[in-house]
Amino acid sequence: MKITMAHGSGGWETSQLIEGIFAKYFSNPILDQMEDSAVVPGGERLAFTTDSFVVNPVFFPGGDIGRLAVCGTVNDLLMSGSQPRYLSVGMILQEGLEIESLERIVRSMSETAKEADVLIVAGDTKVVEGNGELYINTSGIGHIPDQREVRASLCQPGDRILVSGYLGDHHAAIMSARMGIENEIRSDCAPLSQMVEQLFAAGISIRAMRDITRGGLATILGEYAHACGYGMEIAEEAIPVSAATRGFCDILGLDPLYMGNEGKMLLVVKPEDAVGALEIMRKSAYGQQAAIIGTVTEHHAGRAYVKTSIGGERLLSALYGEGLPRIC
Amino acid sequence: MKITMAHGSGGWETSQLIEGIFAKYFSNPILDQMEDSAVVPGGERLAFTTDSFVVNPVFFPGGDIGRLAVCGTVNDLLMSGSQPRYLSVGMILQEGLEIESLERIVRSMSETAKEADVLIVAGDTKVVEGNGELYINTSGIGHIPDQREVRASLCQPGDRILVSGYLGDHHAAIMSARMGIENEIRSDCAPLSQMVEQLFAAGISIRAMRDITRGGLATILGEYAHACGYGMEIAEEAIPVSAATRGFCDILGLDPLYMGNEGKMLLVVKPEDAVGALEIMRKSAYGQQAAIIGTVTEHHAGRAYVKTSIGGERLLSALYGEGLPRIC
Repeated sequence: MKITMAHGSGGWETSQLIEGIFAKYFSNPILDQMEDSAVVPGGERLAFTTDSFVVNPVFFPGGDIGRLAVCGTVNDLLMSGSQPRYLSVGMILQEGLEIESLERIVRSMSETAKEADVLIVAGDTKVVEGNGELYINTSGIGHIPDQREVRASLCQPGDRILVSGYLGDHHAAIMSARMGIENEIRSDCAPLSQMVEQLFAAGISIRAMRDITRGGLATILGEYAHACGYGMEIAEEAIPVSAATRGFCDILGLDPLYMGNEGKMLLVVKPEDAVGALEIMRKSAYGQQAAIIGTVTEHHAGRAYVKTSIGGERLLSALYGEGLPRIC
Repeated sequence: MKITMAHGSGGWETSQLIEGIFAKYFSNPILDQMEDSAVVPGGERLAFTTDSFVVNPVFFPGGDIGRLAVCGTVNDLLMSGSQPRYLSVGMILQEGLEIESLERIVRSMSETAKEADVLIVAGDTKVVEGNGELYINTSGIGHIPDQREVRASLCQPGDRILVSGYLGDHHAAIMSARMGIENEIRSDCAPLSQMVEQLFAAGISIRAMRDITRGGLATILGEYAHACGYGMEIAEEAIPVSAATRGFCDILGLDPLYMGNEGKMLLVVKPEDAVGALEIMRKSAYGQQAAIIGTVTEHHAGRAYVKTSIGGERLLSALYGEGLPRIC
């Protein structure tokens, strides 16, 4: 059996690969298979995470692979409840890459790190044969303040589900760039540091949060439902999608629930904190279109589902097959 | 200007790239440009490092890319004086990779992590187009016990220089595998955890240590000389090289001082500790051929040089040009 692009989709095939091979050999008490960051003990609790970025093209409307590589790891650290502190950068460069492009990307990483208030403290560079592409791995360390515990398995019936803004913009921007389509869609690629810190600072009871990347909202909701053992219900008409991306999806038959994002998060909070959380998100730089989209239920236990505007219900499965290759 | 394979050699072109682009944008008080790990403050002092592995072929006599990826990062952490604790693994897989090969590599990583007593706690997988190759990034965190300070700039005249065993075996094994030459040379790819812990446990005054990888001993000695401002003198006849690798080098015109290793370290200790250090190294699993090879001098300040067996002196420069591409 061989690796296919589908193994990189972030959906069903990816989780088969993780369970079938990685978890089999790498399992240990600390490796938490549901979350993107590991929490490691020490004098203080630390979050530790890694991500490789292979997005194609490397420059796209709204961002570039460098900004993406910083945002992706910063957001993973944030989602564990940690305050991102330090990043490492591992570059794999293909022969023929324009040094000017490399510099533009490195400058973008530096600017994004400043915006996200993290320090890049370690690096490595390798060169391989090829056509001038590049891949970037970023790993990160965050400090977890005491009393913060954020985990999908903590979700309870009645908890409210929020998303921080329009879905699908990164996915649609990458697809548009790859197809040479000119439109106004820009990647949502952004660090969510400010939004998340303000939610914690306001004392919002956050059960779980996750950045919505490869595999889209539907895949994550399914994982959450599985982890907590309850249903995750979302209302079709509540899902925020920009007019431009909605139009793009309609033409190409795409579903925003399965599209990748790079600056959006899913948040589950206690019912009484939902409105407060929404206000905070809407006031922050990257959350103006945040919305309350659903509820944790006893109904459809262990599954995610959409309540349609005419009252029907549609079970959501994880993303099967390829998704959009090399979206991040 | 474009990226060439020479930018990945670990020698002069690599440091030009680091200084010209990465250091320009990523500089901060913590990023130490001379060492492979960053030391980050916190409740305890932590070392944090990253490395990507692109070795070709992925299976070679004495190891594989998985063992290499664990050893490389473990050894980097050790060299900062830290006790390696946690690793992350970022895989970039090319379409067409045999899943059986992937499993063999992942199993090897798991076994090597057990040998080195580190936990793999975070992971990520991406898939790109290609011919079934794979790249692995590992990042790592280590804990630095109090009072340990290990830095090239601490070297003083009279300090002795040791290497932990035969030079050039990894380089020669990779070259042999690539050229389809059958011989008895095996990569030295190994975690140095046991050796380093025993040196510290015995109270050896370690000024500086560094694993000898890309760029070889000569490149590192030059960096050390630059960092401490003294000369680094090594005796030609003291440099340990196995008979098989020596023969291989003679035929192909290779210099073991510039060849890459994956389980060897350079150690600088106070003069009175040199013999004690040597005994400890020789007793440990991967140090039987350890040797005292030289001295820190006031002569040739800021340069590394070889004293030849007939009494001459030869200044060493950093590796220029390509070196062996994709050796790690």
